[in-house]
Amino acid sequence: MSDTSFADALLSPRSIALVGASGDLGKNTARPLRFMRKHGYAGAVYPINAGRAEILGEKAYPSLADVPGPVDHVFIMIPGREVAAMLAQCARAGARVVTIYSDGFGETGPEGQARQAELVAQARALGLRLLGPNSIGSANLHTGGIVSVNAAFEAETLLAGEISMVSQSGSMMGSLLSRAAARGFGFAKSVSVGNESDITVGEVVHALVDDPHTKVILLFLETLRDAATLARALARAQAAGKPVIAYKLGRSEQGDALAQSHTGAMAGNDVAVDAFLKAYGVMRVRHLETLFEIAPLASRHTRRRPAPGAADQPARVAVITTTGGGAATVVDNLGLHGMVAVAPPPDFVHRMAQQGLRIRETPVIDLTLAASSAQYKMLLEELLRAGWCDAVLSVVGSSAQFHPALAVKPLLEADKPEDKPLAVFLAPEAPESLALLHAGDIAAFRTPEACADALAVYFAQGSRPPAPGTAFAWPAELPRSGMLSEHEAGALFGRLGVSVARGQLADPATLDHSVPYPVVAKVCSRDLAHKTELGAVRVGIADSDALRSATEEMLENVRRQAPGARIDGILVQPMETRLIEMILGYRHDPLVGPTVLLGAGGIAAELSPDYAVRLAPVDEEEAFRMMHEVRQTRLIRGFRGLPQGDCQALARAIAAFSRLACATGVQIEEAEINPLFVRADGVVAVDGLARLA
Amino acid sequence: MSDTSFADALLSPRSIALVGASGDLGKNTARPLRFMRKHGYAGAVYPINAGRAEILGEKAYPSLADVPGPVDHVFIMIPGREVAAMLAQCARAGARVVTIYSDGFGETGPEGQARQAELVAQARALGLRLLGPNSIGSANLHTGGIVSVNAAFEAETLLAGEISMVSQSGSMMGSLLSRAAARGFGFAKSVSVGNESDITVGEVVHALVDDPHTKVILLFLETLRDAATLARALARAQAAGKPVIAYKLGRSEQGDALAQSHTGAMAGNDVAVDAFLKAYGVMRVRHLETLFEIAPLASRHTRRRPAPGAADQPARVAVITTTGGGAATVVDNLGLHGMVAVAPPPDFVHRMAQQGLRIRETPVIDLTLAASSAQYKMLLEELLRAGWCDAVLSVVGSSAQFHPALAVKPLLEADKPEDKPLAVFLAPEAPESLALLHAGDIAAFRTPEACADALAVYFAQGSRPPAPGTAFAWPAELPRSGMLSEHEAGALFGRLGVSVARGQLADPATLDHSVPYPVVAKVCSRDLAHKTELGAVRVGIADSDALRSATEEMLENVRRQAPGARIDGILVQPMETRLIEMILGYRHDPLVGPTVLLGAGGIAAELSPDYAVRLAPVDEEEAFRMMHEVRQTRLIRGFRGLPQGDCQALARAIAAFSRLACATGVQIEEAEINPLFVRADGVVAVDGLARLA
Repeated sequence: MSDTSFADALLSPRSIALVGASGDLGKNTARPLRFMRKHGYAGAVYPINAGRAEILGEKAYPSLADVPGPVDHVFIMIPGREVAAMLAQCARAGARVVTIYSDGFGETGPEGQARQAELVAQARALGLRLLGPNSIGSANLHTGGIVSVNAAFEAETLLAGEISMVSQSGSMMGSLLSRAAARGFGFAKSVSVGNESDITVGEVVHALVDDPHTKVILLFLETLRDAATLARALARAQAAGKPVIAYKLGRSEQGDALAQSHTGAMAGNDVAVDAFLKAYGVMRVRHLETLFEIAPLASRHTRRRPAPGAADQPARVAVITTTGGGAATVVDNLGLHGMVAVAPPPDFVHRMAQQGLRIRETPVIDLTLAASSAQYKMLLEELLRAGWCDAVLSVVGSSAQFHPALAVKPLLEADKPEDKPLAVFLAPEAPESLALLHAGDIAAFRTPEACADALAVYFAQGSRPPAPGTAFAWPAELPRSGMLSEHEAGALFGRLGVSVARGQLADPATLDHSVPYPVVAKVCSRDLAHKTELGAVRVGIADSDALRSATEEMLENVRRQAPGARIDGILVQPMETRLIEMILGYRHDPLVGPTVLLGAGGIAAELSPDYAVRLAPVDEEEAFRMMHEVRQTRLIRGFRGLPQGDCQALARAIAAFSRLACATGVQIEEAEINPLFVRADGVVAVDGLARLA
Repeated sequence: MSDTSFADALLSPRSIALVGASGDLGKNTARPLRFMRKHGYAGAVYPINAGRAEILGEKAYPSLADVPGPVDHVFIMIPGREVAAMLAQCARAGARVVTIYSDGFGETGPEGQARQAELVAQARALGLRLLGPNSIGSANLHTGGIVSVNAAFEAETLLAGEISMVSQSGSMMGSLLSRAAARGFGFAKSVSVGNESDITVGEVVHALVDDPHTKVILLFLETLRDAATLARALARAQAAGKPVIAYKLGRSEQGDALAQSHTGAMAGNDVAVDAFLKAYGVMRVRHLETLFEIAPLASRHTRRRPAPGAADQPARVAVITTTGGGAATVVDNLGLHGMVAVAPPPDFVHRMAQQGLRIRETPVIDLTLAASSAQYKMLLEELLRAGWCDAVLSVVGSSAQFHPALAVKPLLEADKPEDKPLAVFLAPEAPESLALLHAGDIAAFRTPEACADALAVYFAQGSRPPAPGTAFAWPAELPRSGMLSEHEAGALFGRLGVSVARGQLADPATLDHSVPYPVVAKVCSRDLAHKTELGAVRVGIADSDALRSATEEMLENVRRQAPGARIDGILVQPMETRLIEMILGYRHDPLVGPTVLLGAGGIAAELSPDYAVRLAPVDEEEAFRMMHEVRQTRLIRGFRGLPQGDCQALARAIAAFSRLACATGVQIEEAEINPLFVRADGVVAVDGLARLA
């Protein structure tokens, strides 16, 4: 079965069977037939109901076997326990895709998961693909093929357009469609993936990349399943110039990230998913309605990736308005997102004056009284071509409410280049103006918060997909599973190219070593995760006598508190100095795979999240970008005249450490260097751990 | 002239003269007459226009002197330069309030400010009160008395209601009215204060507290003028049970600067204004539409002030929904605001089961399939009375769109106590349901972000107004103006009751002192602000020889870099130890007066804002609240087993320091203790400064 025909059967079926279709208008199961008749679906629809010969005035069939023609897509709306028995019939009827509305599968617990796995196995054997279970269905708004019980399709008319949506929440698919429809946004396809037992978000995105009606893809995400497929699909979407925009739940879990750095989860999953979305060019919005409001901005304008460190340079937005207060509501939010409203430079003001338009060198260009529509248009066109701003924001006042056509005329008529975004906020309630702007393919926003969100997302620094480097051969002398000891972890990091404190593993009996005093001594054991708390670390040891007595005390502490711990020896390290402490974390995230984290070190940093996460591995350029995202690194980048740290060495260490993702022959679950000391000349890993699968 | 008649003339005039009224429908100046006729104003309206006998079909008068009856309120719409000449006529006509739409005054710069001051002086002499200049006017929506050119009143009908608005932005007054009107929110009064040359926001709030039609007061603020009047008005509003809600520009630095750019006020005042609003019980929203959407929540439910430290305990929100995804969009935002969705405890679940409703112990109670309308209502009533949650959030799915009456029925019919707030978010586009809920006086929100904002604002810890303590007599030995030296500042803080490092001022020649070594030495001078940078501080001085050589070097540094600095001597202090460093700041804010700040100390804290600000003085209970708002204090409050600091002593120090506000005979501009060392047993001020007017 070719991909194309799968995509057609999924998104544009020519014939649809409705198993469990009801004639009772009060029931959800009566909806799909009604929706398709209402919205003019021209393909064949076969209601299947063993108990009725007729449904909503149309012939019903007792079973799929009785259907007169071939079936592309079956929609199953019967109790969950009866679904499995239906699949063979679906295959015999020629179906390629079966959408299962029925619930009682993976979402209910282990037993349901087992039933779901059986269902998928059966479908695979039959050559069927499954959407769901627990899917509210899908819709093709160009054909009226509504394979869905979603109440949103009760609407009298559906607006066909160029946006498609994939949702992990069935009810939110409808809610977003209704909100977008009320604003004149037309859709091509809309798919609720339910439990994603077989067809995942990634596969739907693949199909949408190939769909000629789809220009922009929206995702409503609760989690991520099958990141690999989605990653390939997103890469194809980028190549095809189809922007992907996501609203993903889970932003509020981010606060836990660093607080958990010693407990296993280096960062919540949302942080990893966020890194994944960034790596594949997905624009993640914070406000629900921005998801569709941003579509014209995303589809029309080319985003450029700023240079490393450019995050320190805020995006500059030129603002023109007929309402100073209204403009200020957006500008205030731009500031919260790290952007600035930029004042026109003197030569620009002079040039405008020469053309008869007096403006001032203020961050908001107020045209309340001065300008004609022609002047507004002229100014807008000049701003869209000016080198001193990165975007143009137009905020329209009461005229948008009472004279919509007049208010939006210069915005619609201006010649708008594609390389500079234009966003519009309408201060009053002005649905007509919003609709006119939308019809003119101009991004227009209902709230100042969503407007600022969209511009922030547009200018957000993306990252790059991980570029798998050369394989890293696992050192023969290291274990291939379980916890490594600190000494082994140090050896591993050293082999990757990270500079590690030159520790020597001394025999507790002899304590022979050649590290110059003063030294640090630690009990080296793969069974001790919290050495400091256990009293198994001593710093500032002045001589061999002190080392002897420190060792005895540490070993006694360990014997008392962790009697079963295997002890490899006493790790003796030189005392290291530093400008700042950082944390490097590696985690094989269960959803997105290898990730690398750079975080602020020290206990005070735990009070306020301060870290950057990427899919691993990263190169040094990406490592520099990470560094610029972590506030604490400002302390070594010229803040208040403090001494400069070796940022180059830090970037090299991040990139080297992230190559844990390239290890062959083992699966590294997590690893951490904490602390990594950053000095004026280089960095040094002072403590670390690694855990293999 | 009594206050009452002033309020009536301002908000409910019985007769209005329109100076500069035009008959040209294309002009703004034609609007007030048209608006009043459209909206049925029953009082007398007198258009004044020297050039026309008739305007819009009504008799026009050549001047105010020709008007046949008394005039309460004059609206002036003539060029700014002609306004002054008009005031005497206004007084002769009997007017009590004159609203000046004309611009060209304070907003244009120093000359305009001078013209404005003359205007006010003239008005005072004539017994007139001025609204504006540069005011778009005011409106009484119950009488149709629209003394305004605001386009918002073009609307075919105006909805009268119980909300009143005061706005520093004329255009945003209209924008907010139009947005609120589209949602069915009715207004009582709406006032644009313009330049506030005479009548300020505070005076309008006073009048609204007395207005029987006003139950909720909304403020759109750019800055604050005449904080004292507003403070009294807000205290009266609290006493009268009329909630005041504010949207204030300036949350970002640029927004703050922009909002005040034409007022001449300093930037960076938002933090102080925020402390002011909190102190007087104003709920400050972050989202524009929350300003009116929160009104039912604010007016219906009693807010309780949590205990100190309760900020660490998030507000617990019980969530019921028919759309899991929709509920999650709000819950995610609640988390970002530090609130939690709380799961029902087992006994509650059990009790519901006994009443035939099966719910689970999950943070979101999903009623998608299970519940009847009666069960929904029963559950809601139980939740609104349950002790384990502080608020109830209901999120409604597609039924809100297609069956509005059904969807909101249980919400409307439930018996809702006043001591627990209920908020509703409708996931789909559902204007009818929103309107029904609004009509039922239930707070319903259009976006998940505004919904979470409202709940966060509702539960935000307010503070108390500063309670002026006993006067603090200025120590006779200290200067009464200019900078104090560090030694003098230390003496000042000590006199207030703050424990100060026991420094002794030594003669540079003899260096006699009795502080035990090791010591810290500093050059003491009121002319040196940055001693460390100048090399005028030495720590860890071991003995008197070291003190001698350190002193010589420091004096040489000062001589070279600050040759004019007056030197009082060498300040010798003991070396102090600490758990953490804090900063105590005092500032006489130009807008709100005395403020006190507690901030995290140390350079790392500068990377991420971490402070609390209050109007000064504060008592120890309020000081404890401040402490709990500063993240860094967690390090001395049991974080990760770290040693506990003396929080009681810190609170005492904050309260004592804040009594700088009570100093008599001097005006303290600013003062700072930086650092304030917090130890296990007490606190100690190690360095400080104070500047007097």
